[in-house]
Amino acid sequence: MKVSIERSALLKAMSQAQSVVERRNTIPILANVLIEAEGNTASFRATDLDIEVVDKTPAMVERAGSTTVGAHTLHEIVRKLPDGAMVDLTDDGASGRLEVSAGRSNFSLATLPKEDFPVMASSDYECNFTANAAVLRRLFDKSKFAISTEETRYYLNGVYMHASDRDGEKVLRCVATDGHRLARIDAPLPENAESLPGVIVPRKTVGELRKLLEDDDADIAVSVSETKVRFATPEITLTSKVIDGSFPDYTRVIPQGNTRRLEVDAAEFAKAVDRVSTVSSERSRAVKLALDEDRLILSVNAPDSGAAEEELAVAYGDERLEIGFNAKYLLEIAGQVDRENAVFMFNSSGDPTLMREGNDETAVYVVMPMRV
Amino acid sequence: MKVSIERSALLKAMSQAQSVVERRNTIPILANVLIEAEGNTASFRATDLDIEVVDKTPAMVERAGSTTVGAHTLHEIVRKLPDGAMVDLTDDGASGRLEVSAGRSNFSLATLPKEDFPVMASSDYECNFTANAAVLRRLFDKSKFAISTEETRYYLNGVYMHASDRDGEKVLRCVATDGHRLARIDAPLPENAESLPGVIVPRKTVGELRKLLEDDDADIAVSVSETKVRFATPEITLTSKVIDGSFPDYTRVIPQGNTRRLEVDAAEFAKAVDRVSTVSSERSRAVKLALDEDRLILSVNAPDSGAAEEELAVAYGDERLEIGFNAKYLLEIAGQVDRENAVFMFNSSGDPTLMREGNDETAVYVVMPMRV
Repeated sequence: MKVSIERSALLKAMSQAQSVVERRNTIPILANVLIEAEGNTASFRATDLDIEVVDKTPAMVERAGSTTVGAHTLHEIVRKLPDGAMVDLTDDGASGRLEVSAGRSNFSLATLPKEDFPVMASSDYECNFTANAAVLRRLFDKSKFAISTEETRYYLNGVYMHASDRDGEKVLRCVATDGHRLARIDAPLPENAESLPGVIVPRKTVGELRKLLEDDDADIAVSVSETKVRFATPEITLTSKVIDGSFPDYTRVIPQGNTRRLEVDAAEFAKAVDRVSTVSSERSRAVKLALDEDRLILSVNAPDSGAAEEELAVAYGDERLEIGFNAKYLLEIAGQVDRENAVFMFNSSGDPTLMREGNDETAVYVVMPMRV
Repeated sequence: MKVSIERSALLKAMSQAQSVVERRNTIPILANVLIEAEGNTASFRATDLDIEVVDKTPAMVERAGSTTVGAHTLHEIVRKLPDGAMVDLTDDGASGRLEVSAGRSNFSLATLPKEDFPVMASSDYECNFTANAAVLRRLFDKSKFAISTEETRYYLNGVYMHASDRDGEKVLRCVATDGHRLARIDAPLPENAESLPGVIVPRKTVGELRKLLEDDDADIAVSVSETKVRFATPEITLTSKVIDGSFPDYTRVIPQGNTRRLEVDAAEFAKAVDRVSTVSSERSRAVKLALDEDRLILSVNAPDSGAAEEELAVAYGDERLEIGFNAKYLLEIAGQVDRENAVFMFNSSGDPTLMREGNDETAVYVVMPMRV
């Protein structure tokens, strides 16, 4: 193999590859990236056995071929090379070394046989559709904060992507929850996505996917089977196993009958919650909301460190209510609001509370209260 | 006590105070800041028993008094308050609470008796002089990287500040070393500093001192005794115990007879060292310099991961030399060079190497070679 690639293109490809590769690997080949050069393209493939990413980049291929080399080392080298450099990758196939050279820099890196590299088995995808990058970004960005980190409830360690309907409109829906809070985000169902099987996209995949979604105008090809999901741009293909489990019936958690309506400036609300929670104890982080005629009093009472109270002018016309929440959860859901006021719908101090942005039903959040 | 302080002034004072306070304290009062209000000033005093900082700020004092309150909590609260707010601090002396209020935010923080606060004993300073902030900043900034972190060699855990002379010129000198590298930085000796006893300023004090030195034009009042050092601006007084030990005779370590002279662009040199060291093993980080007629070849050979080589055009007219260094040490000293080329003076591959900036003798660095 002998191939020349422009440094910035190589850096982009290697950035995506090395981020899939785990820092510590018991299987040496998993630390490597598989480089394949042919035609006028070089491809970079990396995997952790659950996720595989393939990044194609234009290259001047003098001699086709392939090899594998340490992903983090190659990424570091390319990162440190001067911008604009042409990088030559040369492998004679016999020495067990990949020569990397650019300008007056020369590197010789240990390789492992390409035959040992675990290429992910291809899959029959039942459902193939195209979605806009900005739409996918919103679906995952607004739901991922609620992903559970509890390993015992592995079926909550991802975002549940599925087709559903809301008030008769077909939607592509992402849901995540950890039992304390829940996010349900909808977008219009793309063409050909009707047969989408519900899949739980793992947390790490959601993180890797994010890098494919930077360009607002990009179209992302999505393919889904019972066991795998694939997201692809013309350059990058990200394939991932999905979590093998059943996502719980989240619809029962979303309160339908909450009638007490609070409307509040989300940014002001978040700042006030952040301030009063300064004195809360590290573990509970409990904040009390006391609601009365167009008035919200946030308070914290921590016997050790002290107490805090702050008043906010809000829109609230229902009867008096006191309810407690974990400050971290309130801050996270308030942080999702980017255009209008936050609207909270309460029932009683013991019932789940719903939050949405203005009257927008396409993004709803549920947060469980706590005793204060 | 009842006092009103503008939020940004209070934040500045509390930032300095909380950074001296350790996050974990076995003695509760050490987590607190002592607030004293009198006349038209409020002062904020914090200590870890080795360092004490007192920050004075203009305040509207309605009722003089003093109390102590958790430094990190008060700092966090002030940080989160909106810019421009007036903050009221009220303590009735009986409730054991300090009321903090600004706008619609109210906090009530647990206090501890001011009598329990350990105020550092005052000291007779033998030497008092004034130094420009920019001069002190250079002395400490360029030497602190070489401070040792080995706790057994506690007398190297700081910067040795003393009066000395260089080629007949009296200088204020800062030296730090960890046995592998050394920095010796000189400035003209300020008036009245002739009697300065040599003191080892601890690492943490160097860090705290840095915050007093941001303003180039400021004059810093420096007071030194055998056991303590004090740096003061009109607002902030930083007092610190010095390390009780003898700093080794560093002059013997600085090579005098090195004649092989290498001159190199420091930034290009650092980038090349950084690149080739990518393949070096984590532990040794050894880089080999091979010098020949106006040519420097940097190389690394790591059996596991591979090899790297890079050539640089340099000014070198002496006989061929090969010498190895820890890449981290080379990067650190090259990073000190900010105006001219780096000049290295070598003897043999086994001897300490000297580096300075051009022909500037006021900042010299020594680095020990390693076998490669």
